[in-house]
Amino acid sequence: MKPKKRRDAGRARGEPIVEAVLMHTLEELATSGLAGLSVERIAQKAEVNKTSVYRRWPTREALVSAAMERMLGEVSARIPDTGSLRGDLLGLLAPVCELIGSDLGKAVLRAAVTEATGSSVKEIASRQIENTSQPLRAVMVRAQARGEWRPGADPQQLVFMLVGAVMHRALLEQAPLSRRWITGLVELALEGVRPRG
Amino acid sequence: MKPKKRRDAGRARGEPIVEAVLMHTLEELATSGLAGLSVERIAQKAEVNKTSVYRRWPTREALVSAAMERMLGEVSARIPDTGSLRGDLLGLLAPVCELIGSDLGKAVLRAAVTEATGSSVKEIASRQIENTSQPLRAVMVRAQARGEWRPGADPQQLVFMLVGAVMHRALLEQAPLSRRWITGLVELALEGVRPRG
Repeated sequence: MKPKKRRDAGRARGEPIVEAVLMHTLEELATSGLAGLSVERIAQKAEVNKTSVYRRWPTREALVSAAMERMLGEVSARIPDTGSLRGDLLGLLAPVCELIGSDLGKAVLRAAVTEATGSSVKEIASRQIENTSQPLRAVMVRAQARGEWRPGADPQQLVFMLVGAVMHRALLEQAPLSRRWITGLVELALEGVRPRG
Repeated sequence: MKPKKRRDAGRARGEPIVEAVLMHTLEELATSGLAGLSVERIAQKAEVNKTSVYRRWPTREALVSAAMERMLGEVSARIPDTGSLRGDLLGLLAPVCELIGSDLGKAVLRAAVTEATGSSVKEIASRQIENTSQPLRAVMVRAQARGEWRPGADPQQLVFMLVGAVMHRALLEQAPLSRRWITGLVELALEGVRPRG
């Protein structure tokens, strides 16, 4: 068998190569954790030269950060505007559940949870969580304008509750994230932020 | 140095020996996970014969289960009855936060989250979570009697939200579980289960 010709990620910056490197980085992170992550192996699997991976992402942290950003980007990219807080919260939570419910998402989240205190993956995870809370703020501002948000209700705490509940269910209980369950969760949380009376 | 004389956990069933074995089991679980957990090492640290550990807990799973039960026992043992749902929820959550906020609790929880799907630690964790939700049901029944619980609000989902939010904050954000934060969380959740209007 002829060895496969490696592409150069530095020269040929087409999306497919970047996609491949980042996808294999997530897989490496999921299976080996940050400590065992091998750029050599990632380059091999993505059929790219190791040096060209380093040219684009000078450190392992930069590579992991880019891969996680890529994974979470889809979650925070879609800001639903359904006209109701209920619809918007369901719209926000759906891709989060899809991600945490997937094998890869679960594995990456496990790796993030397991990494020792102060590790760079943890910092990346925290920054990403912060990023994903931006859409929620947009949703909240619109809900406030519609009179659907109780003054003083903390959107960040709502994020903790919703994402925490999903994590708890998917990782610890290992129960399915069914549409019915998610709807019940959103309705419970919704009552918490609605104006009283 | 004279080797320490080992105690026999089978014969001398005093609490201190059981306590020592279970405490070292939790530490082993936290540092090595279930896969790397060594009963030999636990016995050594607790200064007990390995055979007498096995006499009391015939399998590693039985030992780990007993240790986790011991750890979570304190959490579910205290059922607060403060006369208000707010006070009861704060009372319930305080030991959970204390546990998840501690290094050992955090490490054991990480081990539980990280274990592969279908592992026995996961089953143990699920059973234990189920156990700890019993006190919440007692609290809910009293809240219902006082008219503080909205019909249809799901206590299990409240558990997911509260414990999930605490996990999220302690493990992923690595932010402190301050009294102020916990109070805000309970107040948000409280609004979700209160009767409307």
